Amino acid sequence: MHFKDDYSVGAHPKILEEIIRANESLEISYQHDSYSLKAAGLLRKEINDTEAFIRFVSGGTLANLLVIAAALKPYESVIAVESGHINLHETGAVEYTGHKINSVKGIMGKITPEEIKDTLEMHNTPPHMVKPKMVYISNSTELGTVYTAEELKAISEVCKENDLYLFLDGARLGNALMSDDNDLSLRDIAALTDAFYLGGTKNGGLMGEAIIITREELKSGFDFHLKQKGALPAKTRFFGAQFTAFFKDGLYYELARKANLSAKKLNKILKEKGIKTKYPTRTNQVFPVLPNELIAELQKEAAFYVWEKESDSESVIRLVTSWKTEEKEIEEFDALLNKLL
Amino acid sequence: MHFKDDYSVGAHPKILEEIIRANESLEISYQHDSYSLKAAGLLRKEINDTEAFIRFVSGGTLANLLVIAAALKPYESVIAVESGHINLHETGAVEYTGHKINSVKGIMGKITPEEIKDTLEMHNTPPHMVKPKMVYISNSTELGTVYTAEELKAISEVCKENDLYLFLDGARLGNALMSDDNDLSLRDIAALTDAFYLGGTKNGGLMGEAIIITREELKSGFDFHLKQKGALPAKTRFFGAQFTAFFKDGLYYELARKANLSAKKLNKILKEKGIKTKYPTRTNQVFPVLPNELIAELQKEAAFYVWEKESDSESVIRLVTSWKTEEKEIEEFDALLNKLL
Amino acid sequence: MHFKDDYSVGAHPKILEEIIRANESLEISYQHDSYSLKAAGLLRKEINDTEAFIRFVSGGTLANLLVIAAALKPYESVIAVESGHINLHETGAVEYTGHKINSVKGIMGKITPEEIKDTLEMHNTPPHMVKPKMVYISNSTELGTVYTAEELKAISEVCKENDLYLFLDGARLGNALMSDDNDLSLRDIAALTDAFYLGGTKNGGLMGEAIIITREELKSGFDFHLKQKGALPAKTRFFGAQFTAFFKDGLYYELARKANLSAKKLNKILKEKGIKTKYPTRTNQVFPVLPNELIAELQKEAAFYVWEKESDSESVIRLVTSWKTEEKEIEEFDALLNKLL
Amino acid sequence: MHFKDDYSVGAHPKILEEIIRANESLEISYQHDSYSLKAAGLLRKEINDTEAFIRFVSGGTLANLLVIAAALKPYESVIAVESGHINLHETGAVEYTGHKINSVKGIMGKITPEEIKDTLEMHNTPPHMVKPKMVYISNSTELGTVYTAEELKAISEVCKENDLYLFLDGARLGNALMSDDNDLSLRDIAALTDAFYLGGTKNGGLMGEAIIITREELKSGFDFHLKQKGALPAKTRFFGAQFTAFFKDGLYYELARKANLSAKKLNKILKEKGIKTKYPTRTNQVFPVLPNELIAELQKEAAFYVWEKESDSESVIRLVTSWKTEEKEIEEFDALLNKLL
Repeated sequence: MHFKDDYSVGAHPKILEEIIRANESLEISYQHDSYSLKAAGLLRKEINDTEAFIRFVSGGTLANLLVIAAALKPYESVIAVESGHINLHETGAVEYTGHKINSVKGIMGKITPEEIKDTLEMHNTPPHMVKPKMVYISNSTELGTVYTAEELKAISEVCKENDLYLFLDGARLGNALMSDDNDLSLRDIAALTDAFYLGGTKNGGLMGEAIIITREELKSGFDFHLKQKGALPAKTRFFGAQFTAFFKDGLYYELARKANLSAKKLNKILKEKGIKTKYPTRTNQVFPVLPNELIAELQKEAAFYVWEKESDSESVIRLVTSWKTEEKEIEEFDALLNKLL
Repeated sequence: MHFKDDYSVGAHPKILEEIIRANESLEISYQHDSYSLKAAGLLRKEINDTEAFIRFVSGGTLANLLVIAAALKPYESVIAVESGHINLHETGAVEYTGHKINSVKGIMGKITPEEIKDTLEMHNTPPHMVKPKMVYISNSTELGTVYTAEELKAISEVCKENDLYLFLDGARLGNALMSDDNDLSLRDIAALTDAFYLGGTKNGGLMGEAIIITREELKSGFDFHLKQKGALPAKTRFFGAQFTAFFKDGLYYELARKANLSAKKLNKILKEKGIKTKYPTRTNQVFPVLPNELIAELQKEAAFYVWEKESDSESVIRLVTSWKTEEKEIEEFDALLNKLL
Repeated sequence: MHFKDDYSVGAHPKILEEIIRANESLEISYQHDSYSLKAAGLLRKEINDTEAFIRFVSGGTLANLLVIAAALKPYESVIAVESGHINLHETGAVEYTGHKINSVKGIMGKITPEEIKDTLEMHNTPPHMVKPKMVYISNSTELGTVYTAEELKAISEVCKENDLYLFLDGARLGNALMSDDNDLSLRDIAALTDAFYLGGTKNGGLMGEAIIITREELKSGFDFHLKQKGALPAKTRFFGAQFTAFFKDGLYYELARKANLSAKKLNKILKEKGIKTKYPTRTNQVFPVLPNELIAELQKEAAFYVWEKESDSESVIRLVTSWKTEEKEIEEFDALLNKLL
Repeated sequence: MHFKDDYSVGAHPKILEEIIRANESLEISYQHDSYSLKAAGLLRKEINDTEAFIRFVSGGTLANLLVIAAALKPYESVIAVESGHINLHETGAVEYTGHKINSVKGIMGKITPEEIKDTLEMHNTPPHMVKPKMVYISNSTELGTVYTAEELKAISEVCKENDLYLFLDGARLGNALMSDDNDLSLRDIAALTDAFYLGGTKNGGLMGEAIIITREELKSGFDFHLKQKGALPAKTRFFGAQFTAFFKDGLYYELARKANLSAKKLNKILKEKGIKTKYPTRTNQVFPVLPNELIAELQKEAAFYVWEKESDSESVIRLVTSWKTEEKEIEEFDALLNKLL
């Protein structure tokens, strides 16, 4: 029973097949191979933006630090929720590039337009304070929640009104788009943000994320940043092949939908047993609140992280499902719970 | 009536006299002039540490970024209260050197041992999170409050137990030491911290702060950092002369005491009129809560900052006194209040 | 006829096979998967150092910037030849991490002990100058030459005597080790340097380089640097699998030997026609000096870079061979030359 | 006999007088005090540019790193001669801000248009190389030489043609402008460059340099950079007062002229004795080539630096004169030479 994360499993067979295919030919290197061009074409079509600037990199932290460092002047900062991946789980990668993160509380992992406006208002004594210039959000969020079209539009508007860039971390964007609560398309995401990235690693890829920049002024010079930060491997066909496989016939959505479905089943099982979840289950992450003794017993047979303390006797655990989660694992977890409760 | 800050006034005459004296001779440059050496000697005596490493720089932000950047490895971070000067009022200077600030709420501008421990506990998944390695405090704080010996000892202990450096920003350390609530000596400060700086600019100097490093491992290589960050002007005698004037016969304490006294008088006047202060008046900063209409009237004749919103109809203003604040200014402010109330 | 580089071809079939195998299992992520552990074990055996610290990253620039930034204090610099990859071909990646490169002329792409000593002597006014603390070399060099055991020992000794780290960029280390002129083993390389990396990408891998750190003090904290610089993808099994395939039965050496052999054939063909080479052909790079008209004709049918101007009428071109260069390509180039001469 | 440098002497009395005057009033802080405004006004008049952006900082390294870091994007570099102050004598300050210095040989400390063009030509494979975007020169140079109007115009033109910023380090600009070989006015300097700074410290000031930015796009956001790099002390009146004293009645030129005159006398003395100088004496630096034994004897009674080795038996020494160098010191040096020769 593996519910620890969505990146301890390998890649989907179709991803590997495309990599094997891509291995044969002689290809121009550094993002100009035919597979990267093909994948970029598929993505441009998907978002209906023939001018979108698209690059592939090996991981999410790299994607985040690149977009942020390339967009901001040295004294500009990025606003993010406290639980944001860049704020807590990337070893200060953004700060290493010289930029401050203005962290705000957020609600269920999501930033609110009010928090953005408050942050701007607070930074009212230039040049003694950083100048907030970007808003960073993730969809789905670190807590598995998703932004609705209304929410994203409101954020996008505040950004436009205040000349802020909007950047969306889509490490688990597939899961967000396949959520029952989702009413956004990839096209909407592209239209409402200035840049975003689409995660491959956590959604059945082997390694790789697709950075998509739609705002004109953020495109120029980006390749220099890629090379300078060590994010320009020679054989980028390997990334291109994966995203070709993802988007040539909908595999990206299919895998995310499958992962979400498993989480939904887990959620149902918990609900039936009267177990509360700390955050609503919207994507492929489930956050049940359980007694510490029960958690200790569960951990003997199932793999998952203890997320946070709830009270002296209870904690929140995190169950993550992936495209490879098997029906059997869910049934076994159900049985295990029944046995222990 | 100038209550805007403590740095819009010039330097004390004795400071200037020493500068004029220091101007005559031929001096070795770059911190090795006889005046810097003399001032360092006076400070070493004051803190009873003959091995203390002492350097003079032109401002507080420079002192802060130097000590922090010199002490931390690229992936290490510094813990500070949200209202900390490095967190809000230095345009991301610390982040520009590559380091994250882990901000905590604090109580009345002061950090608590619990907040330090919580921050450490939260950073429990290396290498995915920064490694907190330093605690930054200021005394007096941004809110004019001071640390007691008991408080500073408790913080110092938590730092020692967890292998954290403790760095104290003393831009207004004179005011803290001259507070009625203070039970710390400069000697205690030096013994309980690993590094601190003593502000000259806000306490009657012209320009200059004294960085004092007591922890052995933080001394090595510091001069390279000074030069690299542009903090090593040739004619450092100008800094040395000021700190010689400050410490050869207690001028530093005398000026701070004088500023505090003026704030105390202001505080008394407010109290007599039944006006609340947002933060307790401990040093040279007073934070009365006043109706917005009254504030508008006051601003016509007195200079001060509106600090923060208290309610829809009230705000907190900040009144700062300096060594040069005159009895007359306080009396006029009293009269003005009487007229307007 | 492809002589442009050694990274426009795909990976060797055995590399892919191991990746496909590695894809099946559930694996711990972030360099702790069984394939990365296995590959590290093979490498440790190869260099006879059971304590070597080994990590896999996606490219050479990333490997270089990581080792250098992790080893140096902010005011420390790295010495390299002008033609060094970090100095000219990495978009200032090292400078972006804050460090100066002290460049020296070098001889045929190689640094000399004298140049190292001269650089140290020149930096004689601390703290007004950076402190050289590392020597960076590459083997084979950017010009295809190799270091002899004697040369590397002399450099290593100068480094030890002067407390400098020695770091070897092994993007084409396989080619160096398989050179007819080579008298160094991987074991020697490991013993004579403090850190080095073994290139996979240019030697028949898909993407990935193995960083090997032997100096104790450089190991600590390295994983934080990996994460902070975005160099820690989740599914590192993909890197581990490649290096397992490379070193479980000598594939790494075999592929490099094959590439070198093709270059040797090209060199022989040129020599027979009386065509000079600018640099001696030692590995998989050949640098013939040709008339500009001839170059223009050749480029119509063969792919290669014009490396540098030799005179008004002649230029140096670079022919690179890879594990996949075919006998037929060489014969065709021979025939083409015969036709055009 | 002090010929070691031009910053071991104090400030000129008129500088101090203006500081004392400036000390009295209540002044707005952070570059907006009346003295800084007055000095800026005088400088704008001097260069005939009412829109010039002017700020005062505490030292030359700070001025250099600020202008360069504020102007360049992360992947852009600055071209400078090897002997340039930023390249050798600032502890990697520019690299610490993330930027590469492309160093070229230069002739007698001066860069040539050809070297600039060659550097651009060499950086022909974006995005694998940094993008040169600025040329840094100093006038007078590190070797005491000066740029003629023709030379500066040629450099300025190459910069304009290639969209490069031209930045002039004027730590000793006064000496350059007062050179017998000079045919440039401050107005010309301002018109031909995009930014420059005027040194105060080495020309009879106490501490402070005036940064002057004429290129529109380089002005915006500069104050944020000032604050972020710790270059914005509160009481900037101290800088403003010095530059007011310098430029209200020509003191700046007078002091530089005086220093140059002393160097000329030294030069004449050397010439009469048949002693060669390594670089032509144009400003306040003289570089005689002397036998090592003689140097050792001279050092017993005179202070100066040994600049570089000339041969096994001879070295170049550097004699620097200042506004305070006395006729007597020169006569004594003459007598000493006569005694020893």
